[in-house]
Amino acid sequence: MNYPNAIESLIESFAKLPSIGKKTAERLALYVYERMSDEDIQVFLDSLANIKTSVKHCLICGNMSETDTCSICADSNRDHSTIMVVESVKDLFVMEKVNEYHGVYHVLHGAISFSKGIGVDDLTIKELLAKLETGEVKELILATNATLEGETTARYLKALLQDQTNLKITRLAHGVPVGSDLQYADSMTLLKALEGRREY
Amino acid sequence: MNYPNAIESLIESFAKLPSIGKKTAERLALYVYERMSDEDIQVFLDSLANIKTSVKHCLICGNMSETDTCSICADSNRDHSTIMVVESVKDLFVMEKVNEYHGVYHVLHGAISFSKGIGVDDLTIKELLAKLETGEVKELILATNATLEGETTARYLKALLQDQTNLKITRLAHGVPVGSDLQYADSMTLLKALEGRREY
Repeated sequence: MNYPNAIESLIESFAKLPSIGKKTAERLALYVYERMSDEDIQVFLDSLANIKTSVKHCLICGNMSETDTCSICADSNRDHSTIMVVESVKDLFVMEKVNEYHGVYHVLHGAISFSKGIGVDDLTIKELLAKLETGEVKELILATNATLEGETTARYLKALLQDQTNLKITRLAHGVPVGSDLQYADSMTLLKALEGRREY
Repeated sequence: MNYPNAIESLIESFAKLPSIGKKTAERLALYVYERMSDEDIQVFLDSLANIKTSVKHCLICGNMSETDTCSICADSNRDHSTIMVVESVKDLFVMEKVNEYHGVYHVLHGAISFSKGIGVDDLTIKELLAKLETGEVKELILATNATLEGETTARYLKALLQDQTNLKITRLAHGVPVGSDLQYADSMTLLKALEGRREY
């Protein structure tokens, strides 16, 4: 026998999430059906429905925000002449948890990937270049992941910007384990990586 | 900095699901926000909204069904004089996958648990007794989990029904690893357990 359509459809939705296979998805969908209260399902529904409407991209850095400008870009105590380039909002939050970085960010929303067909135009590189044109940026910290895609993106940006002699381009130091995603690093590793950043 | 409210709320909803901790919940919520298409989110929303409205309990056995009677109870080729008592719909589906059981089911929707405060009245035991009163049931297979709660529930049912001399009460044989949930057993283990079921 098959699951009813609504269950089957919920299983498929769960299975679209990262690291959730078909078996786990089944377990989650059945848990929602059998154990979750109507109130909890309503909260789940509301937050899911609100996520794209009430949360937008900060117009300056691409961070998520409920207002046009995120709290980091709106903070005059932060150093707006230092921009850290990250692949995703998740990476930005991981770096914020270290509590040692006082500059601002630029979120690329991805990394160059030949296998996934993600090219330069799919990232917010144009927006980054526009920011650099003002001449107010002194340092650009390339904090893309230490993966093939992240490294490719960092090298591309370095090549693109090498003529900008007033701009210091750095890369997070070794410390982030090679081959892994930034989001899995602990705060101490990230702190070491930040302190030891080098000319790129 | 904190996540926007809608993200925070979605993280909490994901964290309510079994085996999903705070860190995984964060990753899932950010994935939904950053990577999931509007269409996929809509499908997710629809299936979640439909799950309690379009899927109900079968009035006879408690299995989930889009109609009043589930396809198993409505199937005249199945042996309606043999009832397998399971804790959850998930367990029923696991048993159906073995493809060797041709009786019908009775879903308790839980098991007696002192620690969780689940008592006899929270389960569908009254409904089970009503079915047995017709005198048409010849065998009752107790297929509750091989856990403390499942064993307690099986013993309770056995004690409750010991005067019904015309009713054969059996329990799934050893084969299901003790201390684990039925849903994690593979089909072969379940088949052995079904074949070797013994008087209880």
